[in-house]
Amino acid sequence: MKLASLKGGRDGRLVVVSDDLQRCLAAEGYATLQAALDDWSAARPVLEAVADRVNAGEGDTFDEASCASPLPRAYQWADGSAYVNHVELVRKARGAEMPESFWTDPLMYQGGSDSFLGPRDNIPMADEAWGIDFEAEIVVVTDDVPMGVSPEAALNHIQLVMLVNDVSLRNLIPGELAKGFGFFQSKPSSAFSPVAVTPDSLGDAWRGGKLHLPLRSWLNDSPFGMPDAGVDMTFHFGQLIAHAAKSRPLGAGSLIGSGTISNRLDDGPGKPISEGGVGYSCIAEIRMIETINDGKPATGFMKFGDRIRIRMDDSDGRSIFGTIDQAVERYGGQ
Amino acid sequence: MKLASLKGGRDGRLVVVSDDLQRCLAAEGYATLQAALDDWSAARPVLEAVADRVNAGEGDTFDEASCASPLPRAYQWADGSAYVNHVELVRKARGAEMPESFWTDPLMYQGGSDSFLGPRDNIPMADEAWGIDFEAEIVVVTDDVPMGVSPEAALNHIQLVMLVNDVSLRNLIPGELAKGFGFFQSKPSSAFSPVAVTPDSLGDAWRGGKLHLPLRSWLNDSPFGMPDAGVDMTFHFGQLIAHAAKSRPLGAGSLIGSGTISNRLDDGPGKPISEGGVGYSCIAEIRMIETINDGKPATGFMKFGDRIRIRMDDSDGRSIFGTIDQAVERYGGQ
Repeated sequence: MKLASLKGGRDGRLVVVSDDLQRCLAAEGYATLQAALDDWSAARPVLEAVADRVNAGEGDTFDEASCASPLPRAYQWADGSAYVNHVELVRKARGAEMPESFWTDPLMYQGGSDSFLGPRDNIPMADEAWGIDFEAEIVVVTDDVPMGVSPEAALNHIQLVMLVNDVSLRNLIPGELAKGFGFFQSKPSSAFSPVAVTPDSLGDAWRGGKLHLPLRSWLNDSPFGMPDAGVDMTFHFGQLIAHAAKSRPLGAGSLIGSGTISNRLDDGPGKPISEGGVGYSCIAEIRMIETINDGKPATGFMKFGDRIRIRMDDSDGRSIFGTIDQAVERYGGQ
Repeated sequence: MKLASLKGGRDGRLVVVSDDLQRCLAAEGYATLQAALDDWSAARPVLEAVADRVNAGEGDTFDEASCASPLPRAYQWADGSAYVNHVELVRKARGAEMPESFWTDPLMYQGGSDSFLGPRDNIPMADEAWGIDFEAEIVVVTDDVPMGVSPEAALNHIQLVMLVNDVSLRNLIPGELAKGFGFFQSKPSSAFSPVAVTPDSLGDAWRGGKLHLPLRSWLNDSPFGMPDAGVDMTFHFGQLIAHAAKSRPLGAGSLIGSGTISNRLDDGPGKPISEGGVGYSCIAEIRMIETINDGKPATGFMKFGDRIRIRMDDSDGRSIFGTIDQAVERYGGQ
């Protein structure tokens, strides 16, 4: 089953989308995705009946450009950093050792969730000097998760899967992390894929709490990354959820992110697509590799007008989640 | 005007409370506080008309013990650390210098907001060894705040004021901060005062974006703190909101916290109430002072069964927000 929220109001208008992303139909009784998640065990069969109808040809034309993020605002957005390869590169580029515990204890930051961007919204930003970057990631949506849940039990709380562009302001990060309280200004509003899908609709690609398909990104129409999200993911989503729920429950509609997808090669860090590699899911990673290889980065961060496109196709080349497609624009103030 | 959310459903049931906290009356048209905040310019006059009626004697008996937090869940909870005195003590206790920039650039962490505790709910926690502490703070609730708002303009976006117990797990903090991504497991669910009030209802005590009254706390019925929230607050709430909104807008119903209230004396850190001082708004602070004075802390963190009470009275000794009153209880699992 595939769900989306058409723009309109603070929480959008929930629709069920056909598997081929061509048609959509409103779900009676559940005006918003949050309302459905709040009542998921009852809502799911109702929505699945609508899915049968829209897949049989009912409904209206579905337009990805009319979508807000599936949850235009949420109560919880916790982003892990499960591709430890990426973290090791960050450290290596600045000449620091990575603690061994990073392979067993997940990194996770608490994100802000009150003002997500839509998948086709521009990214308004006041200053290019902040080091504007994208991060292409997978994210899962949970129902109510009890405090202290085990990683295995946590897998059963995953109700939906999406993509996310976790916009990051690289040049604000060092100053914020030096203050010791984590990210805040350096992690502005994220944008999610037009469509959220149930894990069962992913077939064999969803197994072991990971999504085993390449996540593709294009920077200004040039292929930038296609690492496999199922490869080098040190912690599966059940482990990430359990980490988030160690000292508190998670409310229905909590978003748990994978962190930037990153694959390594047998002989070291990944290569650009132009050199036969799988590329990268953020600009920071190629800059780290340039720094390791050449002593300094060569690739610049995003400028006003630059565009990022993120998509995942199934094994037959069909888009699963729709496309995140955003340009950075100068924010002129209120 | 004073507002509360009676327990019931995920978002509670909005009521308008009489100024003396004795009676309450439901607000027609606005089932939840979030719904009112989403439509605040229209909702406020409707709610004020209800306030006139409840203050004239209409409505039911108001019972603080029936309350959820005014927002039982929220989209944004950003907690500052505006009493830089407190931050300096933290550093001093571990023998570290505090950067000079901390006096001009606010500290703020991104909190989780999906599962707040009610003001009279127990604090369920799995392990006393995590170092269970309270933090007594002031928090404001905003309407929609545009990205890049100035500190002065931000003051006009403050619609409600509350108290908060920002529960903290002290022994999990060093490990989390060492990982560099900020707090997560060390900041479990917070609890807010039974009642949220409009700034104008605070009279002269609300000025310059600060609340100029003592915040009182009792640990197991012993007076623990009564520092004045208007004293030694380095950044006013407008500055904290502007900090939070530097690179993104804030949605209606965003919660912005002051951080632990802390007053210093002319000749150094504050003293316990039993020694004629104003005491402390968290256990960590007295432990830091013990460490500075004696080389090690003497006061323990909270044990199962320990109780924390937090309240603020007006200049006539009347409770403004109702009382946060919580015991720590052993969490036995799902």
